[in-house]
Amino acid sequence: MQRKLMHVGPSFTSYRVQMAGIGENIGFASPEFLEAMKYSLEGLLRVAGADDAYLPFILPGSGTVAMETVSSILPKGTRTLLLTNGVFGDRWIPIMSSHGLDLDVLSAEPGKAVTVDDMEKKLETGKYQNLIMTHVETSTGVRMDLEKIVPVARRYVERIIVDGVASLGAEKEDVKKLGITAVISASQKALGAPPGAALMVVSRSALDSINEFSYFFNLKNWIAPMERYLEGKNGYLSTEPVGVILSLSKVFSDIEAMGLDARIEEHRRLTMALNEGIEAAGLRVLADRQLWSNTVTAVLSDHADDIVKRSMELGVEFATGVHPKLIGKYFRVGHMGYINDFDALTALSVIERTASYCGERVKIGEGVRRAQEVLFEMTDRN
Amino acid sequence: MQRKLMHVGPSFTSYRVQMAGIGENIGFASPEFLEAMKYSLEGLLRVAGADDAYLPFILPGSGTVAMETVSSILPKGTRTLLLTNGVFGDRWIPIMSSHGLDLDVLSAEPGKAVTVDDMEKKLETGKYQNLIMTHVETSTGVRMDLEKIVPVARRYVERIIVDGVASLGAEKEDVKKLGITAVISASQKALGAPPGAALMVVSRSALDSINEFSYFFNLKNWIAPMERYLEGKNGYLSTEPVGVILSLSKVFSDIEAMGLDARIEEHRRLTMALNEGIEAAGLRVLADRQLWSNTVTAVLSDHADDIVKRSMELGVEFATGVHPKLIGKYFRVGHMGYINDFDALTALSVIERTASYCGERVKIGEGVRRAQEVLFEMTDRN
Amino acid sequence: MQRKLMHVGPSFTSYRVQMAGIGENIGFASPEFLEAMKYSLEGLLRVAGADDAYLPFILPGSGTVAMETVSSILPKGTRTLLLTNGVFGDRWIPIMSSHGLDLDVLSAEPGKAVTVDDMEKKLETGKYQNLIMTHVETSTGVRMDLEKIVPVARRYVERIIVDGVASLGAEKEDVKKLGITAVISASQKALGAPPGAALMVVSRSALDSINEFSYFFNLKNWIAPMERYLEGKNGYLSTEPVGVILSLSKVFSDIEAMGLDARIEEHRRLTMALNEGIEAAGLRVLADRQLWSNTVTAVLSDHADDIVKRSMELGVEFATGVHPKLIGKYFRVGHMGYINDFDALTALSVIERTASYCGERVKIGEGVRRAQEVLFEMTDRN
Amino acid sequence: MQRKLMHVGPSFTSYRVQMAGIGENIGFASPEFLEAMKYSLEGLLRVAGADDAYLPFILPGSGTVAMETVSSILPKGTRTLLLTNGVFGDRWIPIMSSHGLDLDVLSAEPGKAVTVDDMEKKLETGKYQNLIMTHVETSTGVRMDLEKIVPVARRYVERIIVDGVASLGAEKEDVKKLGITAVISASQKALGAPPGAALMVVSRSALDSINEFSYFFNLKNWIAPMERYLEGKNGYLSTEPVGVILSLSKVFSDIEAMGLDARIEEHRRLTMALNEGIEAAGLRVLADRQLWSNTVTAVLSDHADDIVKRSMELGVEFATGVHPKLIGKYFRVGHMGYINDFDALTALSVIERTASYCGERVKIGEGVRRAQEVLFEMTDRN
Repeated sequence: MQRKLMHVGPSFTSYRVQMAGIGENIGFASPEFLEAMKYSLEGLLRVAGADDAYLPFILPGSGTVAMETVSSILPKGTRTLLLTNGVFGDRWIPIMSSHGLDLDVLSAEPGKAVTVDDMEKKLETGKYQNLIMTHVETSTGVRMDLEKIVPVARRYVERIIVDGVASLGAEKEDVKKLGITAVISASQKALGAPPGAALMVVSRSALDSINEFSYFFNLKNWIAPMERYLEGKNGYLSTEPVGVILSLSKVFSDIEAMGLDARIEEHRRLTMALNEGIEAAGLRVLADRQLWSNTVTAVLSDHADDIVKRSMELGVEFATGVHPKLIGKYFRVGHMGYINDFDALTALSVIERTASYCGERVKIGEGVRRAQEVLFEMTDRN
Repeated sequence: MQRKLMHVGPSFTSYRVQMAGIGENIGFASPEFLEAMKYSLEGLLRVAGADDAYLPFILPGSGTVAMETVSSILPKGTRTLLLTNGVFGDRWIPIMSSHGLDLDVLSAEPGKAVTVDDMEKKLETGKYQNLIMTHVETSTGVRMDLEKIVPVARRYVERIIVDGVASLGAEKEDVKKLGITAVISASQKALGAPPGAALMVVSRSALDSINEFSYFFNLKNWIAPMERYLEGKNGYLSTEPVGVILSLSKVFSDIEAMGLDARIEEHRRLTMALNEGIEAAGLRVLADRQLWSNTVTAVLSDHADDIVKRSMELGVEFATGVHPKLIGKYFRVGHMGYINDFDALTALSVIERTASYCGERVKIGEGVRRAQEVLFEMTDRN
Repeated sequence: MQRKLMHVGPSFTSYRVQMAGIGENIGFASPEFLEAMKYSLEGLLRVAGADDAYLPFILPGSGTVAMETVSSILPKGTRTLLLTNGVFGDRWIPIMSSHGLDLDVLSAEPGKAVTVDDMEKKLETGKYQNLIMTHVETSTGVRMDLEKIVPVARRYVERIIVDGVASLGAEKEDVKKLGITAVISASQKALGAPPGAALMVVSRSALDSINEFSYFFNLKNWIAPMERYLEGKNGYLSTEPVGVILSLSKVFSDIEAMGLDARIEEHRRLTMALNEGIEAAGLRVLADRQLWSNTVTAVLSDHADDIVKRSMELGVEFATGVHPKLIGKYFRVGHMGYINDFDALTALSVIERTASYCGERVKIGEGVRRAQEVLFEMTDRN
Repeated sequence: MQRKLMHVGPSFTSYRVQMAGIGENIGFASPEFLEAMKYSLEGLLRVAGADDAYLPFILPGSGTVAMETVSSILPKGTRTLLLTNGVFGDRWIPIMSSHGLDLDVLSAEPGKAVTVDDMEKKLETGKYQNLIMTHVETSTGVRMDLEKIVPVARRYVERIIVDGVASLGAEKEDVKKLGITAVISASQKALGAPPGAALMVVSRSALDSINEFSYFFNLKNWIAPMERYLEGKNGYLSTEPVGVILSLSKVFSDIEAMGLDARIEEHRRLTMALNEGIEAAGLRVLADRQLWSNTVTAVLSDHADDIVKRSMELGVEFATGVHPKLIGKYFRVGHMGYINDFDALTALSVIERTASYCGERVKIGEGVRRAQEVLFEMTDRN
C-alpha cells in the first residue's frame, strides 16, 4: 500500500525533489551547491513577488527559526501589533517577549480572521510602528486577505511582517506591490521541499537597524553571506543544509516550469473541490467560506482524532487539530506541495469512509461526486 | 504535477522498491545480491503457489524472453493447443513456429475468452500433449478461470504452460494445486518491480527433456545456476540485472508483509470499484463482467486515443488499445503493482473528464460516486 | 570522474545514509520518523558516552545553533573561561557576548593547543564557574586531550561544555566518565550524515536553571518534546529536518554495527597514514604530532589555495585554510564520516601531484608509500 | 566502511547514473523514456565510431543475449572463424552450434592473443565468410589490436563481429573506419551503467539476410522498433528495461561531456599505473605487456582466491579467475565504468596487503609508489 502524506507539516513532495537532494558528497564549496543556493535565493525572491529592493535569506532551521530571526528587524523601543488567528500566530508572543519586544495582540476565534476594521481601530491609536500577521494559519486553515489588509495597515505602520510558511508558493504574496517589509517561510510547507531550511525575504531598507539580540538570529551576520551566494560565491557563516537546498532548488525550477500562477490555480481548484466535497458529504469546514486557504482545510468532527487514526490505516496521513479551544473536535487536511486534482478525491474518499466508520452521518459517494464536478467545472475544457 | 502511471507495461511501483535497486556498486558476487536473488527465487515459488517440486528461474530479459525460454520444455514432435484471447496470446505463434514446434490455435473475440467446452472439444481429439494459455490477456483485460479450465485440461495433456505476466502477484495461480507445469512472468507487471527480469516457475519433472534450440533460451543451462542461487551461492551464467533483482526482492518482501491474499483482494476491490464506476459514468468495459481481471481494464470509446493523450496531460498515463480488431476503439487502464483504492478514483476522475471533453456522453461525478460506494461496501468496516 | 569529498564541512557520507533520508512522504507524525528520532536520540547518548543522567537534543539547525542553544545552560552572573585553538573556538565569543554572558579567553597559536597548566593558572583565580573548549578545532586540526584537561578543570568549575562538532563519532568523548556537563555536535561532520541537525547531550542537572534569552534557543522549551521522542511519541515544537534525521538514524545504526571503538580506530589509522605520508612526501602538518586529530589535517604550503583548486580539478575537494594568521598558507583535509583506509592514499596522491605542479618540492610516491606502510602496520594481519 | 566494486561484471558506476534510472513511474510510452532511448541509441552509435550506415539496437538482456542475437546476421551455409583468447571467446561455440552454424576455432593460451599471422593462415584457405573476435577478453584481461587485425581480415571475410562487452567506451572501436560489421556490448561493463541491456551496432547491409532462428533473437523483428525509437517514437516489441536505459542515457551524456578520447585516456592511465604497480610490488600480470587492456587486469598468484576473499573484507570486491587452465592461480581487477586515477592506488593497497597476509613476498608500499609515479608522469602537468 502506498502511503499518502496530506499532513500540514512536511508536505507531499516528489521523487525528483527528494532525489535532487542526494549527491556524490557535494560539499558547501562545490559548484553544484553554489548554483543551487543562488538559484534558490533568486527563486525565493521571485515567488514572493520581490525584486532587488529585497534581500532573500536561507538559513538552516525551520519556520520558527525564520520567525525569531526576522524579529531582529524590529528596533528596540518600537511597538508591534500582532494579528493572530490561531496557534501559529500566537507563537510570535513568546518569541517577542523573550527579546523584550513590545507587543499587543488582536485574536480571532477559531475559523475566523481578525477583520480590517478591528485592526484599523487599533492602529489608529498611533501606538504601533510594526504589524505582524500570518497569511495562512496552519492550525485552522484560515487565510487573511493580504490585498485588503496590507494597504490599510501601510497607512499606519513602518514595518509589516507576514508569516508565509503555509502560503508561499500556493498563494499570492506580492510583497513588493503591497509594500510588505518581510515575508518568512520554510522549505517543507507550501513550497513542498523537505524540512530543514528557514526562508526570509526582507526589504533592504529594514536591514539598516538590526536588533542584535543573538549571534545566529542576527540578520546582520547573514547579509554578506547571502550577497555572496547571490553572486555564485561561497558565503559560509554556518553550515547550510546542503541536501535540502538542492531539493529546494528543484522546487523553484519546477515552479518556474509550471508558472507560479498555474501552481496557485491548481491549489485553488483542489481546495474548492475538497471543501465543497466535504460539505456535500455532510461534514463541515471550520473556516468561513471566504477564508478558505489553498493549503490547509480544517474539518469539524467529534470523532476527529479517531478519523485521523483510521485514515492512517488506509494509507493517508492527516493532522489532528491543535487549536486549544477545539482539541479533538476537528482534524486538518494539508494540500501543499506536490499535490494534484486527484488528491481531493483521495482525501474525500478516506474521509467519507473513516468518518462513517466512526459514527458520523455521511452520504457515501456524495463528497467525491461533488468534488469531481468542481474539478470539471474549474478545469479548462479545450 | 505528480505523474501517475496506470499503464499496462511497467506498472506503478514504489519509492522503496526503486531505491532498493540502487546500491553502493553491488556486484553479482556480493552478499547483498546473493541474498536478494535467493529471496526472490523463493518468493517467486511462493507467489506461484509452488513448492520444491518446481524450480524457479530469473533471467535477464522480459516477458517475451520468458515465453521463448519456457518453450524449450516442449519436446520436439509433441503438439500444442494454444488458447488465445488477444495479442499477447497470439505472440506464442511466431515463437513456436521459429523453433518448428507444432501448434494449433483456439481464439476468442476481443473481450471474450475461449470456453472450457471449445477447448475440451479440441483436446478430445487426442492430438495434443501440451496446452498454453494466458491467465490475464493484457490487450483486452480478460481473465481465464484457471480453476475451471486447468482441471479439465489436465485430463488430456501432459504439459500446461500459463502466461502469468499480467497476473502473478495479483491473481491466484496455485500451480501446484492445479497441476500447472510452468508459469511465466516478468518483473514489471503484476509484481510491480522495474522491468528487466524474465521469471519462470517450472515443474522439475519437465526439465528432464529440454529442447535445446538455443544457448540462452536453453533451460538446461540455467538449472545449475538457479540451484546454486537457491543455496545462496553465486550461480553466474549470464549477468543478471542486479538492480532489478534487488528491487524484486523488495517486492517479494512487501508481499510477504502484506499477505498474498490481502494483496489480491486489494486488487479485486480496485477492479470492482473502477469497472462499476466506468459503467455508472456511462462508458463500457470491453470484457464480460465475469471475465474482469484484477490488473487490466479495457474501456470502449471511439475517442480512445484522444482520451489517452488528454489523460497524459492531466498527469495520468493510460495505454492505448492494441487489439487489431479494435484499434482506436478502446483504451486500457493498468491497475497492477503498488496500487491502492484511491487509484480507482483517480482513474475515473480523469476518464470522466477527458471522455467528456472528447465528446462522450458522461455523467460527471457518477463514476467516482459509484466507485466510492463499492470501495465502502467491500472494505472491512470494523 | 567520480568526485571525492574530503572537506571539513559536510563530510563524506554513503549512498545508504543519503537514501535512508528519502521516503514516501514521511511526515513528522509517521511511525518511521518517530522510530528514527528515538533511535537517533539514544544513539547520540551512546556515542557521547552518556546515560540517562543526560538528555539528548536534536534540533533543526547546525553546529552554530547547537553552540548558541547550549549557552542557555550558563546562568546569568556566572563567568566562563573559554579555551580556544582557532576560529571555531573563537566563535563562542560573539555568541556569549550577544547574550551578555561574561567570558574570558585563553588562546593558542595555530597548530598548538592551550595547555593544562595555562588553564589551571586561570582557573585557580576562582573567578570561573564554567569552562568551554573545542575537542577538535576544525580550523587547524588540533585535538585537545580531554582525558588530561577535564579532570583538572572539574576541580574548579561547575559546568564544562565541549564542542564535539568535529569529533563526536570519531574520537572518544566519554562525557559521563569525565564529568562533562554538555557536548554539542552537528549531523554533518564527524558523524557523517547530511547537514541540517544540531545535536546536544546535556546533563539533566544543568537543565534546572535555563537562561531563557530566546524562544528557539531556550532549552527548557525542548525538554518535553525530547522526552516524548525518547518514548517514541510525537514531540513537535518546531519542524524537525525529517530526512536528515532518517539519515542520522542510519549513521547510528552503522556505528552500532561496526562498533564505536572500531570506527574510532579506523579514523586513527587513516590519520596516521595520511599525516606520516604528508611528512614523508616533504610537506608539513600544521598541528604538533601529539595534537593530531582523527578528523582534520591541516597541511602547510605557500601554494595552499592553488593546491585546493587543482585538487578539485582532479576530483577531490579539500578545504582552504581559514585561520586569520595563516590565510593562504595552509589547506585542510577532512577525514570524517564514511572514510576508509584508501582515502589516505587518494588524498596523498592528489596532494603530491598538485603540490608538485604548484612548485612545492615533493618526493612523488614517497607519501603514498609511507602511508601504505602505516596502514599495513596498523592493520590486524591475521 | 565504503564498499568499492572493482569487479569485472557490473562495474563501478555513479550515484547519478543509478539515480537517473529511478523515476516517478516512467512508462515505456513516456516522453522521458523515449528521449532516453533515442539518446542512448545515438550515443551507442557514436561511441562505436559508427554512423547511419549502421543501426544501433538496445534489447532487454545481457552480453550473452547480444552474442546470440547478433549471430542471426550469419547466413546459414556460411562458415565462421572464431579467434578466442579465453572463456568469453569460447562462449561463441555453443551459441553457434545451437543454431547449426559452422565454426572453426583459433585459441590462444591464457594471457596471450591469437596472432595476425595465425589468423591469416586460416583465412587464406578461403573457407571463411565470417570472423568473430573478442576485443578485450574478460577472463584474462587480454586486448586484441583491432587496428592490426581487422584490416588483414577484411581482405578475406565478408562479416566481422567484434565482442566489445569489456571494451566499448574504454577502448577505441572505430567500426566504420575499420570496416567492422557488428560490435556488441552490454550496459554494465565498460560503459558503467547497471546491468540489464544488450547492445549492438550492426551494419545496415548485414540486416538484409537475417537468419530467423528465433523470435526474440531475430534481428529483423527489432529493426522497425529501433528505427522508431531513433525518431523519438514508441517502438515497443518487448518491454525494454526502462530504468537501465535511463541510466545508460546518463552514461552517454557523461561520455559526451568528458569526451570519449579523454575517457579512454583516463582508463589507460589507470591501467598503466595499476599494472606497473603490481609488478613493482613483486607480483605478475597475466597478460603480456603489449596486450594489457584498459578494463581488466589479471594478476597471478597461488593465493588468488584467498586474496579475493580478504580484499572483500577490506571493502574492495575483485573477481576470481575463471580460465579453466588457471583456476585458483589468478584473480582479476576490473577497472571499468566510473573509475578514476585513485582506484589504481586503492586496488594496489589492498592487493599488497592481502597478498602479503596470504604469504606472497610483496614489497609493501612499492606498488603504490610506482603507480603514483606513473599517474604523475602520464598526467598533464600544466
